[in-house]
Amino acid sequence: MYSSWGQSLVQGSVARVVIKRFWHHSDHLISCSFENGVRRIVLNSPKTRHVHPVLFWFLCFACVLHISNMKKICSRNSLSLEMMKAIQGSLIRDSSNAELRAIVISSEGPVFSSGHNLKELTEKEGREYHQKVFSLCTEMMTAIPKLPVPVIAKVRGLAAAAGCQLVASCDLVIAGDKASFSTPGANFGLFCSTPGIAVTRSMSHKMAAYMLFTGRPITAQEAHVAGLVSRVVPDEKLGKSIPGNYEELEKMLEDIRNKSRAVIEMGKSFYHQQKELPMEHAYRIGEQVMVENLALKDGQEGMKAFAEKRKPVW
Amino acid sequence: MYSSWGQSLVQGSVARVVIKRFWHHSDHLISCSFENGVRRIVLNSPKTRHVHPVLFWFLCFACVLHISNMKKICSRNSLSLEMMKAIQGSLIRDSSNAELRAIVISSEGPVFSSGHNLKELTEKEGREYHQKVFSLCTEMMTAIPKLPVPVIAKVRGLAAAAGCQLVASCDLVIAGDKASFSTPGANFGLFCSTPGIAVTRSMSHKMAAYMLFTGRPITAQEAHVAGLVSRVVPDEKLGKSIPGNYEELEKMLEDIRNKSRAVIEMGKSFYHQQKELPMEHAYRIGEQVMVENLALKDGQEGMKAFAEKRKPVW
Amino acid sequence: MYSSWGQSLVQGSVARVVIKRFWHHSDHLISCSFENGVRRIVLNSPKTRHVHPVLFWFLCFACVLHISNMKKICSRNSLSLEMMKAIQGSLIRDSSNAELRAIVISSEGPVFSSGHNLKELTEKEGREYHQKVFSLCTEMMTAIPKLPVPVIAKVRGLAAAAGCQLVASCDLVIAGDKASFSTPGANFGLFCSTPGIAVTRSMSHKMAAYMLFTGRPITAQEAHVAGLVSRVVPDEKLGKSIPGNYEELEKMLEDIRNKSRAVIEMGKSFYHQQKELPMEHAYRIGEQVMVENLALKDGQEGMKAFAEKRKPVW
Repeated sequence: MYSSWGQSLVQGSVARVVIKRFWHHSDHLISCSFENGVRRIVLNSPKTRHVHPVLFWFLCFACVLHISNMKKICSRNSLSLEMMKAIQGSLIRDSSNAELRAIVISSEGPVFSSGHNLKELTEKEGREYHQKVFSLCTEMMTAIPKLPVPVIAKVRGLAAAAGCQLVASCDLVIAGDKASFSTPGANFGLFCSTPGIAVTRSMSHKMAAYMLFTGRPITAQEAHVAGLVSRVVPDEKLGKSIPGNYEELEKMLEDIRNKSRAVIEMGKSFYHQQKELPMEHAYRIGEQVMVENLALKDGQEGMKAFAEKRKPVW
Repeated sequence: MYSSWGQSLVQGSVARVVIKRFWHHSDHLISCSFENGVRRIVLNSPKTRHVHPVLFWFLCFACVLHISNMKKICSRNSLSLEMMKAIQGSLIRDSSNAELRAIVISSEGPVFSSGHNLKELTEKEGREYHQKVFSLCTEMMTAIPKLPVPVIAKVRGLAAAAGCQLVASCDLVIAGDKASFSTPGANFGLFCSTPGIAVTRSMSHKMAAYMLFTGRPITAQEAHVAGLVSRVVPDEKLGKSIPGNYEELEKMLEDIRNKSRAVIEMGKSFYHQQKELPMEHAYRIGEQVMVENLALKDGQEGMKAFAEKRKPVW
Repeated sequence: MYSSWGQSLVQGSVARVVIKRFWHHSDHLISCSFENGVRRIVLNSPKTRHVHPVLFWFLCFACVLHISNMKKICSRNSLSLEMMKAIQGSLIRDSSNAELRAIVISSEGPVFSSGHNLKELTEKEGREYHQKVFSLCTEMMTAIPKLPVPVIAKVRGLAAAAGCQLVASCDLVIAGDKASFSTPGANFGLFCSTPGIAVTRSMSHKMAAYMLFTGRPITAQEAHVAGLVSRVVPDEKLGKSIPGNYEELEKMLEDIRNKSRAVIEMGKSFYHQQKELPMEHAYRIGEQVMVENLALKDGQEGMKAFAEKRKPVW
């Protein structure tokens, strides 16, 4: 399930240097746009069409026979250190911007994300490097609940291992009906222990254990029943909105945009805080949060608008 | 989703005084019966037909044009301070009565409950009043697990915000197939933070977050899959039992009545206690609870009856 | 739901002595095999065909009329003290054996297990004995997450009370489509408090409470939706594998066998540890577990095999 870019093509160090120079730039690893209050982070690890011309000819020379497989090989959106840095950067960048209302993480290609780049986890890279990989991974995953706006995973294709962890770490998950989810690390000698942390907190334990111990994928519908996915929609309705086919995700974003940013921020923060508290303790804090929420300018505007039977103006 | 009685009709203070006097009595807010071991609390906020004659003519005079909307407007069972006091009172009243075997919370009208009365949460009412509202709300919600008998929510129509919290706080939930559930507070500038406490502890987190951040309702069937609802039955089977159409709820109540009250009380108390303990700790206490349960008169009667192949007499 | 062997047949002490001598041997209570890395524990409480000839004639003499019911009566796999000792022994025996890769708990007969043997819980046996029963029960249930290999419950028929607890305590649950699950202890004056500990941690709370308070069984499909069951398969596909009908369970075992034992052991141990930790704390430990996993011989073999595009050799 795991994969990495160009794995079968390039073994020699010359090639590695060339590729690192021209290819491994995070501008290529993800694309990030901002429009209408929504930051869209698209995992977009390099494919044939992104290859720099110099590299392209080099590759043609080096591996004529393999090139037809490239697109497939190179588009599994593995969470390499570079990729995670790029995602993490896009997540936290300018997050206090009042214009920002939601973040959507999606992907290009047939695989949402295949998880860690196993090439980075060999003995050669060394223990310290491994530590760095998992530390950054945790930082990225735990950044999501701390963000002031909802983060939505839009999943098409397979989300595997740390890719599945990324999905489970988002606030909301909308999946295409052909999406699938797995934590197959043990197949490669690396049990999905950290993905298990996120997965166990999102879905039924018997299904989480099934995924972890067998390594098998489950379907979007199974993931929905088990709790991992908020909404399953036909794959074709997951795409860009086109007239007359206004997609589910866009409706969700519209619903979020129609609310007050300050109110959502306060609500999200407490939502994640209370999940881990004993119930009575959560209520003691929760009462105060409600009172503070009402004291917000937008809290009072909401109450007034309701009484005056008009739309609130945040 | 939230609403309150007569909101659009009466703005002036004279009207308010008149209405408060004649209308706002908790005998009208809920009806409460006790029969065959079951206390039935029906949320029943005033409707046209309950209006005192004096008030009726006053209203006819004041708002002839609006009166056709009254029934709809007035029957959303909002959890006003008065309503919560009435429910809380009915929940804890005489709860040690050995005759009491279960409590059912249901509602009249198309809405199970629309949540807090937003009229009570305006700036004008003031911070202290808000604090009082949420404090009473917590008291009511957390009273349910402490009661010695099971509390069952029977949901027809929409349960929104604190109304959804009330459902999630009950031990068991039986819902009509046309029921729906939402936590849309943020639409009105007040994130459903305290409802989120109950909802998060009852259903999958990805669905809870979906409800909290989008404000959208989910169906009874979706709520069942997500964990919020124990049983979904056709709306028409949720009604009063009629011969040949013995309803699901009555069967559940019969099952509870056939057990020993003392045993259910001990079991319910530990059930709620152990949920929040680490597993091994829960087992240490649980073993003792089992031994104590066997030492109960009804515990031994149960064992004896089993051995003697007869029905136990509690 | 609970039952016990020969309950209706033998009341006198002579019979009891005879039966205890010839019948009550744990070799008969369970059968235990080991093949191809899998220990299979089959709950197999004595049936007619296992009866010692001496006992058989004694029984014929004592209760000619009842004998036709014996098979049914005697095959409910109740978790008597002896039965639990036998299961517990088979679970932990030689568990560090490198050949052992998984443990499967299944049953003979129409009932997976009916739970505790109520005959052992009468006043006559006394408080100390009861304590011993529940203490051993906890020991058995909590041994499962500590074992170094996955434990799978294969459920055909009814799993009731402590039988349901045993299922909920396993790592994975595969159930036949005609299986059912219940916690009906309160029917017999003994609330399923300890079963509730395992059940609440595996399934939605509203369904757990439904089972505990009403005592009613739920179907395999309902149990799957509520989270208790990993996989539901047609009853006939739950059986022994036959050519062309390779059963689901065998495929799961194959998937487990194909992984490294050391990796699964490390993964399972952390999986159960992290479930009860606050998320950030879990991640701090989890990062270290990942690094240690990579440092395992099998961890590096996995990475190497992946890079070299070959099957790993553990």
